[in-house]
Amino acid sequence: RIMRPDDANIAGNVHGGTILKMIEEAGAIISTRHCNSQAGEPCVAALARVERTDFLSPMCIGEVANVSAEITYTSRHSVEVQVNVMSENILTGAKKLTNKATLWYVPLSLKNVNKVLEVPPIQYTRKEQEDEGKKRYEEQKLDRLETKQRNGDVIFPIINPEPHTVGYSQSSLIHLVGPSDCTLLGFVHGGVTMKLMDEVAGIVAARHCKTNIVTASVDAINFHEKIKKGCVITISGRMTFTSNKSMEIEVFVDADPFVDEPRERYRAVSAFFTYVSLSKEGKPLPVPQLLTETEDEKRRFEEGKGRYLQTKAKRQAQMQQAAQQ
Amino acid sequence: RIMRPDDANIAGNVHGGTILKMIEEAGAIISTRHCNSQAGEPCVAALARVERTDFLSPMCIGEVANVSAEITYTSRHSVEVQVNVMSENILTGAKKLTNKATLWYVPLSLKNVNKVLEVPPIQYTRKEQEDEGKKRYEEQKLDRLETKQRNGDVIFPIINPEPHTVGYSQSSLIHLVGPSDCTLLGFVHGGVTMKLMDEVAGIVAARHCKTNIVTASVDAINFHEKIKKGCVITISGRMTFTSNKSMEIEVFVDADPFVDEPRERYRAVSAFFTYVSLSKEGKPLPVPQLLTETEDEKRRFEEGKGRYLQTKAKRQAQMQQAAQQ
Amino acid sequence: RIMRPDDANIAGNVHGGTILKMIEEAGAIISTRHCNSQAGEPCVAALARVERTDFLSPMCIGEVANVSAEITYTSRHSVEVQVNVMSENILTGAKKLTNKATLWYVPLSLKNVNKVLEVPPIQYTRKEQEDEGKKRYEEQKLDRLETKQRNGDVIFPIINPEPHTVGYSQSSLIHLVGPSDCTLLGFVHGGVTMKLMDEVAGIVAARHCKTNIVTASVDAINFHEKIKKGCVITISGRMTFTSNKSMEIEVFVDADPFVDEPRERYRAVSAFFTYVSLSKEGKPLPVPQLLTETEDEKRRFEEGKGRYLQTKAKRQAQMQQAAQQ
Repeated sequence: RIMRPDDANIAGNVHGGTILKMIEEAGAIISTRHCNSQAGEPCVAALARVERTDFLSPMCIGEVANVSAEITYTSRHSVEVQVNVMSENILTGAKKLTNKATLWYVPLSLKNVNKVLEVPPIQYTRKEQEDEGKKRYEEQKLDRLETKQRNGDVIFPIINPEPHTVGYSQSSLIHLVGPSDCTLLGFVHGGVTMKLMDEVAGIVAARHCKTNIVTASVDAINFHEKIKKGCVITISGRMTFTSNKSMEIEVFVDADPFVDEPRERYRAVSAFFTYVSLSKEGKPLPVPQLLTETEDEKRRFEEGKGRYLQTKAKRQAQMQQAAQQ
Repeated sequence: RIMRPDDANIAGNVHGGTILKMIEEAGAIISTRHCNSQAGEPCVAALARVERTDFLSPMCIGEVANVSAEITYTSRHSVEVQVNVMSENILTGAKKLTNKATLWYVPLSLKNVNKVLEVPPIQYTRKEQEDEGKKRYEEQKLDRLETKQRNGDVIFPIINPEPHTVGYSQSSLIHLVGPSDCTLLGFVHGGVTMKLMDEVAGIVAARHCKTNIVTASVDAINFHEKIKKGCVITISGRMTFTSNKSMEIEVFVDADPFVDEPRERYRAVSAFFTYVSLSKEGKPLPVPQLLTETEDEKRRFEEGKGRYLQTKAKRQAQMQQAAQQ
Repeated sequence: RIMRPDDANIAGNVHGGTILKMIEEAGAIISTRHCNSQAGEPCVAALARVERTDFLSPMCIGEVANVSAEITYTSRHSVEVQVNVMSENILTGAKKLTNKATLWYVPLSLKNVNKVLEVPPIQYTRKEQEDEGKKRYEEQKLDRLETKQRNGDVIFPIINPEPHTVGYSQSSLIHLVGPSDCTLLGFVHGGVTMKLMDEVAGIVAARHCKTNIVTASVDAINFHEKIKKGCVITISGRMTFTSNKSMEIEVFVDADPFVDEPRERYRAVSAFFTYVSLSKEGKPLPVPQLLTETEDEKRRFEEGKGRYLQTKAKRQAQMQQAAQQ
């Protein structure tokens, strides 16, 4: 698919959210097809989780996005899909890897949306592939439990905030879930949710540093609760941490099932997005430091610093490993 | 154009905002064409004002919208356009008048966006047409000055509100202005702004009464300030008044020109939308009364009541007049 | 409707696919209206075929597309519609004919999608009009049968292809059919399919010659099979022939009805698109010759050459005829 002006910011860089949406669509197609490959109850694969994703190089208007997806592991009730996105400049022929993502899907019955069906097992060419997949499966299961407990937090509005404080850039967006946001089951596509989350995170980042910003990475996202057609969803974002050249933004998605339903507003998804600020030549710029005021803001800043240092250490370890090979 | 699922709410009624957007596009085409009909500087017609508009009957998915536009008056620097929208059920052939709207456009030079050009005069078939047009022109000019002064108000967030209070349903939405929202001059189409305003007003109305709601009318809207590509706009809505079967919602549009511009956030547009709540059979339902708490809320409720009674009296006078003819 | 940045490529030329989609929407409206004009079973007109269409002059961002449609022939079960598209520059008032297209629709019952209803006959002002229409009807019927037999072909991926070979530029795109792609009957609009086909053909052409390319013509397209909501469609394109200044691309649409249906993947549509390469000044550029490797590729090249020479001969005959009048 060719990247169009609406897929990008005014500097011509494609929104991370557009890419996340394409990744999720590819994942949903391949896993739905796999789960229906054996006779049995028809089903639709629903996104349960996206692993941490780095945006390796920005994509631009006019480039072609090549998305390829492969099923890499199946447990009894879930499918792991790996998706690669290449950007291709069709005028020069140059290709670059933009993204590598890992997504987990769960098959839901078309007749009874609360019934999780069994997944047909895939064949592995080597025994280690299955073992490594199983390890990844166990790890993400653990992480899913953890984030479920963290999910009570709310973003309170702040009146007349100072520049570079948390309140200054925090933003929220409401969206009425329409038919084209939804799967055959009438629930919002995970990719639509991620696109809206990236939109809010991008506005928070731009309000903080008032420059051209691009998505650098997204932490693992867990989709705890489905969101139904006709809901109003509120997507809120606040900055939690800044390093010299990056900003971390926490994003919440809350759903209000307001028509014809007795249910209260609930937290459907939450995630951390990391953004960098780019000069006109596409070089990373220094970012103004986030001013923390309350105890909670200071605590969240320290937690963000922890995540930042951990990621940095992991990346250095990988680079050393690669250099030794 | 055929109405699609994306143009409508889950009950199948087309959003008022979709209709407003089509009306504005028709008005922009006819007035830009007219203003360029004589040799001279090329220009683009920018929406300055929309008169009060009633939604006479709801439009549904699958129907075809027929939009027709006519220039009815020209002053030295502005063009009045009347737009009619008919909904046509192409299966039965039934046609209904959905909307009649009056819009005012101003020609801006393509070379210098701050320069308002002169409008070629139109020919009137009868002298009275010109006189009535002139009267409408003077009236709207006066009204534009008045609303300009009222525009300082801000919607403050409220924490943990009670059901049916103002704070309970108030909502806001942020939108990053993209290329396809804009005219050749790089400013947001008036129709795009109105569609977003209707979206927020609809969410406020639905949060208040938790039923299927539709736009019944929009008060005159003045577009005081242009909004540029790349801006973030915040559209906020709060309920101001409820009658037995209608809700009035005030909507503000504020623009943040955050990239590359020293300018502060400014109020670009404001307007009142009236909504009604419909049963599954399409009959108007009673609306829960708005609970006002602060002095400001009580004052706004009284002002809304004034507007409501005035509109009601006007409509009754028109019906009597029609009955006598 | 005003052409927006998203309707066009980076050089500002509106995609042929956008124009095809508007043409089909106009055709669907007029023929659905006609088929429901007499009391009887309500129906929706489904696109069965589009005749060969030339793109006479490119349309640009900011221009207004005027689409007009007329019913020119009716057989017992089908309607022929002629659609003209004019591009209007509303700043200068200049109008140009962009497209003339002929489409065939078939009325399907709203209650039973497999039932083709009868078409109310139209009145002809002259007897010859009916005779000429009948001739066109018989011709297209024959052509429809022929293409049905040709439809078994598949595009295989090629690894590490050489520049300017068939494998080098061949491309495919996967799309999940959503609600807003569909008619009231839950089948994809013909116009949506054509837009996607043009997108893939455009990528193939751009990959081959790495310049700004525009659609020059589309050969007759037959819609043999309907595509249902929820399907995944794969649109694949490969270059079949190059002349000095044009490229012919064959496009296939395959549908995978993978949820809820036992059916195998099937070929829904196929067509030939012709593209030209334009310089920055809008002049046609020479096109690199297509390198054919396999026997099949050589055969398809020769067939493409045949179509090219036939079209050229037809056009010269028409020009001579016009010169003599």
